Amino acid sequence: MTSILHADRFFDPEPGTRLIAREIYESVGDLPLICPHGHVDASIFASDEPFPDPASLIVSSDHYILRMLYSQGIPMETLGVSPRDGTPVAADPRDTWRRFASNYFLFRGTPSRAWVDHVLHEIFELARPLSADTADAAYDEISEKLASREFRPRALFDRFRIEVLATTDGATDPLASHEAVRASGWQGRVIPTFRPDALFSIASSAWRSDIERLARVAGSDIRSFEAFLDAVRQRRRFFTSRGATATDHGVESPLTRRLPPTTVQDLFRKALGGTATAHDQACFGAHMLLEMAQMSTEDGLVMQLHPGSARNHNRFVHDRFGPDKGADIPLQTEYTRNLSELLNEFGNDPRFSLIVFTLDESAYSRELAPLAGHYPALRLGPAWWFHDSIEGMTRYREQTTETAG
Amino acid sequence: MTSILHADRFFDPEPGTRLIAREIYESVGDLPLICPHGHVDASIFASDEPFPDPASLIVSSDHYILRMLYSQGIPMETLGVSPRDGTPVAADPRDTWRRFASNYFLFRGTPSRAWVDHVLHEIFELARPLSADTADAAYDEISEKLASREFRPRALFDRFRIEVLATTDGATDPLASHEAVRASGWQGRVIPTFRPDALFSIASSAWRSDIERLARVAGSDIRSFEAFLDAVRQRRRFFTSRGATATDHGVESPLTRRLPPTTVQDLFRKALGGTATAHDQACFGAHMLLEMAQMSTEDGLVMQLHPGSARNHNRFVHDRFGPDKGADIPLQTEYTRNLSELLNEFGNDPRFSLIVFTLDESAYSRELAPLAGHYPALRLGPAWWFHDSIEGMTRYREQTTETAG
Amino acid sequence: MTSILHADRFFDPEPGTRLIAREIYESVGDLPLICPHGHVDASIFASDEPFPDPASLIVSSDHYILRMLYSQGIPMETLGVSPRDGTPVAADPRDTWRRFASNYFLFRGTPSRAWVDHVLHEIFELARPLSADTADAAYDEISEKLASREFRPRALFDRFRIEVLATTDGATDPLASHEAVRASGWQGRVIPTFRPDALFSIASSAWRSDIERLARVAGSDIRSFEAFLDAVRQRRRFFTSRGATATDHGVESPLTRRLPPTTVQDLFRKALGGTATAHDQACFGAHMLLEMAQMSTEDGLVMQLHPGSARNHNRFVHDRFGPDKGADIPLQTEYTRNLSELLNEFGNDPRFSLIVFTLDESAYSRELAPLAGHYPALRLGPAWWFHDSIEGMTRYREQTTETAG
Repeated sequence: MTSILHADRFFDPEPGTRLIAREIYESVGDLPLICPHGHVDASIFASDEPFPDPASLIVSSDHYILRMLYSQGIPMETLGVSPRDGTPVAADPRDTWRRFASNYFLFRGTPSRAWVDHVLHEIFELARPLSADTADAAYDEISEKLASREFRPRALFDRFRIEVLATTDGATDPLASHEAVRASGWQGRVIPTFRPDALFSIASSAWRSDIERLARVAGSDIRSFEAFLDAVRQRRRFFTSRGATATDHGVESPLTRRLPPTTVQDLFRKALGGTATAHDQACFGAHMLLEMAQMSTEDGLVMQLHPGSARNHNRFVHDRFGPDKGADIPLQTEYTRNLSELLNEFGNDPRFSLIVFTLDESAYSRELAPLAGHYPALRLGPAWWFHDSIEGMTRYREQTTETAG
Repeated sequence: MTSILHADRFFDPEPGTRLIAREIYESVGDLPLICPHGHVDASIFASDEPFPDPASLIVSSDHYILRMLYSQGIPMETLGVSPRDGTPVAADPRDTWRRFASNYFLFRGTPSRAWVDHVLHEIFELARPLSADTADAAYDEISEKLASREFRPRALFDRFRIEVLATTDGATDPLASHEAVRASGWQGRVIPTFRPDALFSIASSAWRSDIERLARVAGSDIRSFEAFLDAVRQRRRFFTSRGATATDHGVESPLTRRLPPTTVQDLFRKALGGTATAHDQACFGAHMLLEMAQMSTEDGLVMQLHPGSARNHNRFVHDRFGPDKGADIPLQTEYTRNLSELLNEFGNDPRFSLIVFTLDESAYSRELAPLAGHYPALRLGPAWWFHDSIEGMTRYREQTTETAG
Repeated sequence: MTSILHADRFFDPEPGTRLIAREIYESVGDLPLICPHGHVDASIFASDEPFPDPASLIVSSDHYILRMLYSQGIPMETLGVSPRDGTPVAADPRDTWRRFASNYFLFRGTPSRAWVDHVLHEIFELARPLSADTADAAYDEISEKLASREFRPRALFDRFRIEVLATTDGATDPLASHEAVRASGWQGRVIPTFRPDALFSIASSAWRSDIERLARVAGSDIRSFEAFLDAVRQRRRFFTSRGATATDHGVESPLTRRLPPTTVQDLFRKALGGTATAHDQACFGAHMLLEMAQMSTEDGLVMQLHPGSARNHNRFVHDRFGPDKGADIPLQTEYTRNLSELLNEFGNDPRFSLIVFTLDESAYSRELAPLAGHYPALRLGPAWWFHDSIEGMTRYREQTTETAG
């Protein structure tokens, strides 16, 4: 079946250039996908249950969709998002879908539109554009397909030719879903990624319970910084044994700074005593990035750094609906000085690979491409998040390739 | 009559894309204009006198033109700009015009050139390009047209299909010109915009007289912060009664921060005593933006924010010729943290609209588009000032549409 | 002979635009070259010896080439770069060349590739693309040509139609090579540029010996700031007598700030005593930029400013191989406030010309173009270093021309 989308919709309009683009695309379009950074829940592949309905699959679970609709004055509650206090949400999935369809014109020119159009017309093969008029028919058609075997998670995994999918998992996660996937005998490769952010947030009220969970899963008492490092090292071994090939670190600033041993031990004791400040946490985090790089040179896990997001900027939305509801906003981010210690210690080490992302595009040509075009250990992550779009990827290429190769 | 300018001069050169651009332009080119932020003096519509001459209309009053010529070593005095000390300026308008025409080639590739070309060839229908050779003939032809009824301010207002024109007016302005326009019976809609910057500049030597003027027009004594807020509220009501739909705020930094009541009262008393510092002014201004947002939720005026300009960078030019002579220079500007308090207090409020502009394009994709793509109250102003140009508008679209919609 | 490179390789693919580009290029392609900022050693024109071999000419001496290969894990030692400690390097030039040729595919899409392709196919007229397979034949063909008279430095200088080539020289350099060029009777114009950075680095361990060298070449004792200024003034006169038309200043921050006379005298005494700190050096440098501008108004040397590079970011590479090995990384750079004092003192002075460069492209449209579009003395340098590339020059034009003209 032919899609209603223009086959060349992402290519340059100049005919000569378009021909070359098409030729390149045809030569790579069928390659398998390697997905190094996903937020998919591994349990969907363990159970392989059908996806519940079009609205929860496409609308309520996509923070790009939610943020845009919310910014146009549409309340979260009417989009199938439940407040954390348990207030019941009336919206049934079909209502949410209709609301989405009626407002779908708002997404013109956005990457969300490009993705959802692809999903609607290439994956679900809908014959008509989504709008208020076609909402119900689309809902029914998608629902019917979701119920079929071809649209179950594993079938889609195969259809998309996914060679490997890396999820993102807290350091204390027992990785039960990954174990269930493996135990099921299914051959799809779904691997965890080690994300220890919570363990380094020593000023957070949740830190204490995270450390207790760490002590539990590591089977050790954590009364000193050395014991903490040992437990972290052990968790990295556990993740590696479950297939992990990388760690991931979400930090507000990419500052890296080694603290003297006694200072970091004191900080850790302060944290155990529940009196660590925001400044303590920043120092501790800057030091821990160096410890993580050190461990990577030992266990070979690739280190990924995602800095520069002010999380939960909108306290009202966060308090009512929780994190990841579209209210994380980028910050100016400095790399040349902040990464200096880490790159000087490990940037020339052939055992080490660091992948750095940015939400601050002004750093592409100024800092990141020059750094990646010099340090053997450093690689640039692709255009991230808001910049994972046609224009964003174009800027990424224009501003990094010449200097970083 | 056909213009000597290429009809497609602002469109993409690729033929297919150009056809689409032309089609889109034809579908909107005749729409009426809504001009939300003008620096036109309303009195020209009250009197409807002819514009005096080509040089004062097109050269001496345009800070974009003056700055470029000044940067090439041409003294302000020879361009019809009078020093503030009253030294008489010899240049007669025809001399200024000749100087402009001889140097018109300097404007190649600038938005000023695009605008002046439009004025010369589309509005005044000159048949030859402006240069030293054609200067006198152009001067004569434009002068003759300016004397005719078709080129009076009101006639041009109608010819340009202006539906509404908003001026920018100090908070203590009695709006006499607006009243005169209304009293004249002419139907053109020229409305004021409430700009209270001077009232918040508590460290300025002019602040005391501004406050006295406020007290006079508000008919009240201003001895406390509460009385000040009341007077401001009353002026907003007055502006609203004269047709205003918006406020406008020019600030160096867009910092918003609520002060405790006693702190702001103390600051205000310090200001009345004439001892407020630059730091006090910054704190007071950051607080007043929250008060302005609060009042907007009550009276419905849209709030506009124009931050990030270092005013009067060139003290020599400022001391000799006064403000707005091309020596305002942009600064790095931060929005994510600075607007945090204001957006948290009012960003989810359906009664509130905030329009934010920037001179720091690096904030488009990093901060402004993500903020506008989340907070219901926030809208982005179009490409401003230096960026109100073909390339600037292109960057604006490329860097905001995908994320802000 | 026809090159294997596409004649239109740098032009827009749209046929109409390409025709115009070709026409413009043909009208200027044969103009002589004026090279205001070169890092060529003048002595090669004094001796006019043949270049030694392809590897040392094209690979080992080019920090753009070295950085890219190093970033891919290829050790400097295998590229003909000798450690500073004198450890002998085994690599003979042919081995280095083979290594370069085998990895030449890594340079796809980089300006280095554009330049080396030009050198290989337009200058040396190689008929086949460089790769592992063609490495030896290319080496032999280039070697043979280098031995011929047509490929000696002076012959290439003439072939490239270089009208003038400005080198960059330390303030205490006796300019012996420039004198030798002049004495040789050859007519090529190779002039020095006055670069006094080392003299202003009062916290550097090398400063003391630099000052002693200055005292020697200036023939004076330097025991006070006034004597220092006199010696600097005298060196500027010497450089001018050898043909210099400009000075050049590499600074981390472009801060300009005048110190009170007693403060700067105290700082200088502290420097002579060997106790100046990094902060002292920053203050001293900020002051010296004003002194340099002042001297430029007196002796007419154009002042060039190259700010914003964190030199020798990689201490391992610096310690082992010395400076200029690809480990200088750009920093965020602020101009509006930092240049304020200098522009206010000298920016309106018709005797003064300041050319400012940047590695921080976000400053183009925000700060540099607005400043250059106002101050008569200020000119923008072209896209510099990492940005001296097709994409970089395109951004430069798009982001500065509209505002700076």
